[in-house]
Amino acid sequence: MKEKDLLARIGKLRTKSGTVETPLLFPVINPAIQPVTPSRLKEEFGFEAIITNAYILKKRYLNQPVETGLHKFLGYDGAIMTDSGAYQILIYGGVEIDQAEIISYQEAIGSDIATILDIPTGWKVTKNQASLTVEETLRRAKDFFKFKTRDDILWVGPVQGGRHLDLVAKSAIEMGKMPFQIHALGSPTEVMESYRFDVLVDMIMTAKKNLPIERPLHLFGAGHPIMFSLAIALGCDLFDSAAYALYAREKRYMTENGTWRLSELDYFPCQCPKCSRETPNEVLDKSAKEQEIFLAEHNLYACSGEFRRIKQAIRDGRLWEYVEIRAHSHPALLTAFKKLKEYKDLLEKHNPTVKRSGLFFSNSEGLSRPEVTHYRERLKERYSHPEESKVLLLAPQTYNKPFHKAREFQKIQQVLKILENNMLNKIHVCFYAAPFGVIPLELDEVYPLSQHDNSVPLEDTTICYVANEVASFVGRSHYEGVVLVHDPHNWSDRVKSACKKSCLDKGLKFNYLVLKEDSTKNILTRLEMILRKNLSE
Amino acid sequence: MKEKDLLARIGKLRTKSGTVETPLLFPVINPAIQPVTPSRLKEEFGFEAIITNAYILKKRYLNQPVETGLHKFLGYDGAIMTDSGAYQILIYGGVEIDQAEIISYQEAIGSDIATILDIPTGWKVTKNQASLTVEETLRRAKDFFKFKTRDDILWVGPVQGGRHLDLVAKSAIEMGKMPFQIHALGSPTEVMESYRFDVLVDMIMTAKKNLPIERPLHLFGAGHPIMFSLAIALGCDLFDSAAYALYAREKRYMTENGTWRLSELDYFPCQCPKCSRETPNEVLDKSAKEQEIFLAEHNLYACSGEFRRIKQAIRDGRLWEYVEIRAHSHPALLTAFKKLKEYKDLLEKHNPTVKRSGLFFSNSEGLSRPEVTHYRERLKERYSHPEESKVLLLAPQTYNKPFHKAREFQKIQQVLKILENNMLNKIHVCFYAAPFGVIPLELDEVYPLSQHDNSVPLEDTTICYVANEVASFVGRSHYEGVVLVHDPHNWSDRVKSACKKSCLDKGLKFNYLVLKEDSTKNILTRLEMILRKNLSE
Repeated sequence: MKEKDLLARIGKLRTKSGTVETPLLFPVINPAIQPVTPSRLKEEFGFEAIITNAYILKKRYLNQPVETGLHKFLGYDGAIMTDSGAYQILIYGGVEIDQAEIISYQEAIGSDIATILDIPTGWKVTKNQASLTVEETLRRAKDFFKFKTRDDILWVGPVQGGRHLDLVAKSAIEMGKMPFQIHALGSPTEVMESYRFDVLVDMIMTAKKNLPIERPLHLFGAGHPIMFSLAIALGCDLFDSAAYALYAREKRYMTENGTWRLSELDYFPCQCPKCSRETPNEVLDKSAKEQEIFLAEHNLYACSGEFRRIKQAIRDGRLWEYVEIRAHSHPALLTAFKKLKEYKDLLEKHNPTVKRSGLFFSNSEGLSRPEVTHYRERLKERYSHPEESKVLLLAPQTYNKPFHKAREFQKIQQVLKILENNMLNKIHVCFYAAPFGVIPLELDEVYPLSQHDNSVPLEDTTICYVANEVASFVGRSHYEGVVLVHDPHNWSDRVKSACKKSCLDKGLKFNYLVLKEDSTKNILTRLEMILRKNLSE
Repeated sequence: MKEKDLLARIGKLRTKSGTVETPLLFPVINPAIQPVTPSRLKEEFGFEAIITNAYILKKRYLNQPVETGLHKFLGYDGAIMTDSGAYQILIYGGVEIDQAEIISYQEAIGSDIATILDIPTGWKVTKNQASLTVEETLRRAKDFFKFKTRDDILWVGPVQGGRHLDLVAKSAIEMGKMPFQIHALGSPTEVMESYRFDVLVDMIMTAKKNLPIERPLHLFGAGHPIMFSLAIALGCDLFDSAAYALYAREKRYMTENGTWRLSELDYFPCQCPKCSRETPNEVLDKSAKEQEIFLAEHNLYACSGEFRRIKQAIRDGRLWEYVEIRAHSHPALLTAFKKLKEYKDLLEKHNPTVKRSGLFFSNSEGLSRPEVTHYRERLKERYSHPEESKVLLLAPQTYNKPFHKAREFQKIQQVLKILENNMLNKIHVCFYAAPFGVIPLELDEVYPLSQHDNSVPLEDTTICYVANEVASFVGRSHYEGVVLVHDPHNWSDRVKSACKKSCLDKGLKFNYLVLKEDSTKNILTRLEMILRKNLSE
């Protein structure tokens, strides 16, 4: 594993045809109607792996791929994964093949990664039906180990259950017990086609939570760049895309921002080699077949570009920011992104604690970030304020960071300097700041408390969160009094009321003064007075 | 003008070297150290226009460009704009040339678009200094018309004032009175370098408000793709970029999401022809000069790709959505985007009322959209409910649209069907919905009231907005009573309290019932009872 961010990871997967880097996209190859040859996929487009359907191969080409070997048959020397026909079951309902057959076929043709004959659950099925697919898939998974003869193939154990999360959990737990090298999550295609990315989040998180985390997870049939970043952030490592070719056949153009029909485009919203050289009008003048190839090639560039953006974001420690950008491509994606709130503990558990970049906080969704969860829990469980401190002086966040070095804070520090040392020791300065809540001065240079940028004005939800954190911090502290430097312009009255209430509940003295640029001197005098009064009592 | 969206427009600009399409980016040419030749800029990269500095040309090449003509001198047959040396004044403080000279030079070399010798205001200057630059620029603008001899050149009248908005306004008003073909907004470079995109919004909006709206506006020195969409949405038509080359020289790689140093990249986050063919490691192995050329070419592709995305967004009527996506690339951009709230009337004034696409609403920033402003004002000024209606029945938005055809609304319609006709006439059904507020049933198919998608859960700010709209609608209506179908799961208590208070203030009867999936029948019975009671009294 090279890099981690959220549940995403950049890793190496060793196959018998070479080592590939994950996250990885396998373009789906249909030898009969392939718009871009497998060898071009590798050499021109840089795809290190492809996937094809063993069931279709067997049905159409019989023994030919066995005789030549799959790699020679397809003219591709990278890693080749094969699916077993499960998707055909889902679409056409039933495949005239049994598992022993399709496993030995995959072994005979020499797949690098191969799949058992699972039963996809599908989308609009009752819990009973879904349960049957899970049970049957598990039964076949157990059977599979009796048939398997090759250990140099990476075998995929698919998780089913559809949107029935308890079934997904069960399926993941049982599959995870068996010695598969790779797992896959089945049947998300229809979930995505109906834009239920929120359900997809639930499905992926349920699978991840219950599978051995170190095994790669393949998300079956998820081939649109609009959702790659979200799925990768949740820990999906492998993807296959038939969409690049299917969309092309339907004259559809896909990007990480959405999909267009070719006829809707006046400009190509992309800078790939195809789109930089021609205009939509020029492409519309071509033959239908040429249009299809153009679109397939663009769609492939759109996918590979998006994978590189995501990998660089993982490397930068900016995957949250990247997923957030993408989430604004469609309200349904943003709905799914908001769902991460429910999984913030799981995200926190696996997220690296120190990253290379400062964090960007945009909207209140950022409150679900692992860094925020991590800090909140650590502050609560491991922090106690200096024993000698009697008065909590709470100052608002400054524009520049670290807070205690910022110009705005110098004014307050002037007052503190005037106080005698034995008084100064009794004052504990903390900042209230979005999105982290309360930041003790002595911690304000700890990553990432000073390494982040906010958008202003703050949202109500964020202000409420900080107000709650202030109240909770005061509630569990041992101060005798609190002095709040109140900043109604940026924080409304919420922090003040929450802090006041918490003081009242604990019987602490509460004072505040209002921060106004124009009466600096008065504020300082007042602050000094309050502090002296608090400490002399 | 072909297409409009927000203050953006796709238009044609006729120059003596041909017609170009706006919004348009002019790569800056420095003949001495040009990483990509002007002819390649046109043929390979598709740039229809370039800009170069007449002051530098004159200083370095003297009469040579006059003798050959500018187009031949640069080897470029598209439109060529020249700047006058104003930027050199800003950087080096003073240029050894007077206006008559530089104007006649621009005429002699045959610029297509040429600039008067304005005095840039700069960023960190006092109001007095700023005022002097504005006055002097205006004086020179007036003088200019005495010197000018060529009418086939498009002349640019720059607006100055920096961040002093009253000066920007004055400058724009006075410049706008003079017969320039194009205006420009001066000195945003430093504003952008310090990430004060919020100040840039103020500057651009102040200029736009006070200039003749039909004249193209050039934003000087704004060459980073991260902010093109925002500036174009606010009505900037022309841009120049020296950044593509300057960044390349400093080994910096720019994209619409931000900037990286080449050494920070493990993956190229882009699918342009350069980035699809090589990896960062391969490029790092090249010579410094080759690296610079690689980066300059990538930077150009990043810019032209972004322009195409923006133009397609204008064409789709999705520019708001696109700017919102980009605003999430940096908190400072989102801060600027939030500023649009202050300019919502100006945005509404120029935005087309019907677009090709449904709207996507993500965050509460969407409440500043022209469509929301437009509907709110129209509903207030032009709408009155049917005269015979006595009871307002307020139902929550449905997932599917139009609301009155959605499954969730069928239940309510069942009750209404039971009522006698003379009662039915007295009931007026409206929906409360984000982000539009109150939507009378008879209007719910009017664009864009049913042509939009929301992300859920709704933000507090959005819920409050809708609650206010409900209160205000009830407040100005002539009903005798209101029945609210309350949906606490999605709307908390805010709509209910606001509605109740408004009824109380007006002395109207107020009833509500809670929408719960499991007691449909009870709800219907209750609703019938309430309606009958209301109407029989």
